[in-house]
Amino acid sequence: MQIHSSIPELRAALRERGRIAFVPTMGNLHAGHIALMQEARAHGDAVVASIFVNRLQFGPNDDFDRYPRTFDADCAQLAAAGVDLLFAPGEQELYPEPQAYHVEPPASQNQLDGEFRPGHFRGVATVVLKLFNIVQPQVALFGKKDYQQLMVLRNMSRQLALPIAIVGGETVRAADGLALSSRNGYLSPGERAEAPRLHRLLQRIATAVAAGDADFARLEADAAAELDRNGWRTDYVALRRQADLQPPRSPDDGPLVVLAASRLGSARLIDNVEIPACDGR
Amino acid sequence: MQIHSSIPELRAALRERGRIAFVPTMGNLHAGHIALMQEARAHGDAVVASIFVNRLQFGPNDDFDRYPRTFDADCAQLAAAGVDLLFAPGEQELYPEPQAYHVEPPASQNQLDGEFRPGHFRGVATVVLKLFNIVQPQVALFGKKDYQQLMVLRNMSRQLALPIAIVGGETVRAADGLALSSRNGYLSPGERAEAPRLHRLLQRIATAVAAGDADFARLEADAAAELDRNGWRTDYVALRRQADLQPPRSPDDGPLVVLAASRLGSARLIDNVEIPACDGR
Repeated sequence: MQIHSSIPELRAALRERGRIAFVPTMGNLHAGHIALMQEARAHGDAVVASIFVNRLQFGPNDDFDRYPRTFDADCAQLAAAGVDLLFAPGEQELYPEPQAYHVEPPASQNQLDGEFRPGHFRGVATVVLKLFNIVQPQVALFGKKDYQQLMVLRNMSRQLALPIAIVGGETVRAADGLALSSRNGYLSPGERAEAPRLHRLLQRIATAVAAGDADFARLEADAAAELDRNGWRTDYVALRRQADLQPPRSPDDGPLVVLAASRLGSARLIDNVEIPACDGR
Repeated sequence: MQIHSSIPELRAALRERGRIAFVPTMGNLHAGHIALMQEARAHGDAVVASIFVNRLQFGPNDDFDRYPRTFDADCAQLAAAGVDLLFAPGEQELYPEPQAYHVEPPASQNQLDGEFRPGHFRGVATVVLKLFNIVQPQVALFGKKDYQQLMVLRNMSRQLALPIAIVGGETVRAADGLALSSRNGYLSPGERAEAPRLHRLLQRIATAVAAGDADFARLEADAAAELDRNGWRTDYVALRRQADLQPPRSPDDGPLVVLAASRLGSARLIDNVEIPACDGR
């Protein structure tokens, strides 16, 4: 696996590589990232990964400084997964001057995770557009665990006429259902045992909705209350339309997804479960 | 000359074309545009022009509806200038849904022309990024007459890591010095005779500054007053740094440019003159 930290060197290395499938990451890789790398292989002649902890998407109270950085272990995993090139720029390479031009997503960026992380999706969209302009892939893959991020990037790509297909990869989970995440490392053993409750509750809601329960407000409130009774501090539990994460106008308003974010100890965990539209809806 | 109005057809036609030099326009072409097309030839294997009157960069009180549309004459001029491909999309092709993702330039977009045209440079930056993503040129050319636009696009391209060189083309002028512009067509014969005063005053300021006059505020105010005494309504006359159009911190703060916008009858005219840094500065 080639490793490049300079934009011109990466661009030179990517010439004559054919179709490129790209997986941007912030490092601290787990099986969820590796599944994306393996899926990328089916989409391109060359698989390119990037590792960059993007200051722009962290708020002043977010965990930028303590975000885990495990570069050597990440490289070993990427090489074993058959990644062809890794782009790992320093902050000076990607932000040689203060970033003054941004991709501004629409106001819906400020709901769900955006409500609790002001400016987060502007920072994500801006760095991903820069990485796209540097790598110039034909396909880019992002995990469904960060569902709102995937929606923002898919819509950005379509609305800015980028010549890039955006592919969402399924969330990889531990045996007890907890979605793999870099932030799981912040959990104590006791919190780790409690953490699968988040996915269980989302599954319960998805099953109820699929069976015809249309009282979304009660389903959301009940799940948030059960989390908070068990030591969580919940930011949101929300049933939304998959396409744009707006509240459904009716129970049969397209395929839905239930999303949640809740804090357990010093970790803020997010998860979601898609609810396919049935024949009746 | 090939003409395409569909994005997929244009992309197919551009495959295997080698290095692409791109000149985006809003049509109503004059000798200034044609000079850009000819300069583009030196930068690419294929020269691509576009014609699209971009609603996004017009304010509610701007002249979107009456902006001159002269498609057949434009095509004849482009073909005669040796342009290889013209991209002329309809509004539905470029904006099939309301544009919700924007390129947001920094706050300095709201000075000079941006002060009088709120949202203008956001609209320019967004449509040009979309056109770049569609055409994928190696070089793009813009006229220096729209100096602030050129600065915004040059800085956008650098800050978003676009793999595109931005080239500024010299302003083409009538024999009496008036910068060619689609908006000159709004002038009555009497106003057309008066119009060259704008360039004469900018030249006078440039000569004075090059000769060492450092009283920028007086030079700006004198020129604005002379315009207004002669029937103009002046938005600004401003000496700025070429690189970022910020006010110079001192008379020798890098190469400068003097810019003006003033309204004569129903036309709003803009112009500028670059002032090279001399040995002493």
